[in-house]
Amino acid sequence: MAVLMENTSNTPHAADFRNAMSLLAGGVCVITTDGEAGLAGFTASAVTAVTDTPPTMLVCMNRSSYVYRSFVHNGVLCINFLSSTQQALSELFSNRDITAEQRFSQVPWQTLVTGAPALDRALVSLDGEIIDMHEVGTHTIFIVKISEIHVRSNISDFGGLAYFNRRYCIV
Amino acid sequence: MAVLMENTSNTPHAADFRNAMSLLAGGVCVITTDGEAGLAGFTASAVTAVTDTPPTMLVCMNRSSYVYRSFVHNGVLCINFLSSTQQALSELFSNRDITAEQRFSQVPWQTLVTGAPALDRALVSLDGEIIDMHEVGTHTIFIVKISEIHVRSNISDFGGLAYFNRRYCIV
Repeated sequence: MAVLMENTSNTPHAADFRNAMSLLAGGVCVITTDGEAGLAGFTASAVTAVTDTPPTMLVCMNRSSYVYRSFVHNGVLCINFLSSTQQALSELFSNRDITAEQRFSQVPWQTLVTGAPALDRALVSLDGEIIDMHEVGTHTIFIVKISEIHVRSNISDFGGLAYFNRRYCIV
Repeated sequence: MAVLMENTSNTPHAADFRNAMSLLAGGVCVITTDGEAGLAGFTASAVTAVTDTPPTMLVCMNRSSYVYRSFVHNGVLCINFLSSTQQALSELFSNRDITAEQRFSQVPWQTLVTGAPALDRALVSLDGEIIDMHEVGTHTIFIVKISEIHVRSNISDFGGLAYFNRRYCIV
């Protein structure tokens, strides 16, 4: 009991919350879109499955992101789970100093049914349509109905890329 | 390109989706509640942060779970991030053959501001109130405003418990 009580805040501050959240392991994903509003992509870990009936994911996105409007306007996205060898891609898609075109010119990709980029060598690419959006504070939760699934064939050779305690780890 | 194309399904089946989702690493959590509807808890990995302004989490839950009504009725929950030493707790809270009372009698816990059990030795316990619910297919997304945060003090001695490719891993 004493152990849990050592760090307590009854009115949580954002910084305390971020410190706590750094201790929830998460797979590293690159979320992409394409369409009338153009190519866009960002690195995310606030991604999870909602239900398999029908196959549905959710992705949380900050509405102040400069690519937010591209995702809303295009209405489609592809969720790419990165492999253990793709840490550089995670950094590329979280670097705000380069354009979308520069990002996508540095990584081979193909399009699936929606036209959003599926990154080559991702462990999994889940391609789908944004069917609902829920605003919560600064963020929007995209509800994504999955239309097409690609799974890399030789997964056991690679493993996944996760993020925990503010560092990358291979799982 | 050829690599990604090896496993393709244009109309995803639930089993294909589950296989794909097994390749997204996730921290292992035990979600608990208490109140008028009584004690309840379950193991979950469909948990993520939504925003830090204000500190808000989401938890996805199957509405067919026998403890679903307890969470809705109590209206509060505690999200416990398990540490690398707590795999047995993950199994305890996913075992459908024992009652809630049996589960909670096997693990020391305390109550925080909402009264939901915060499990001793969890890396983090986030205690809060369900402020919104969104039904998606078979599941409901609980939006949880966090009221109290406990972070274990000696985290570097333990590490976190994650689940990837249908096995536990230490991160």
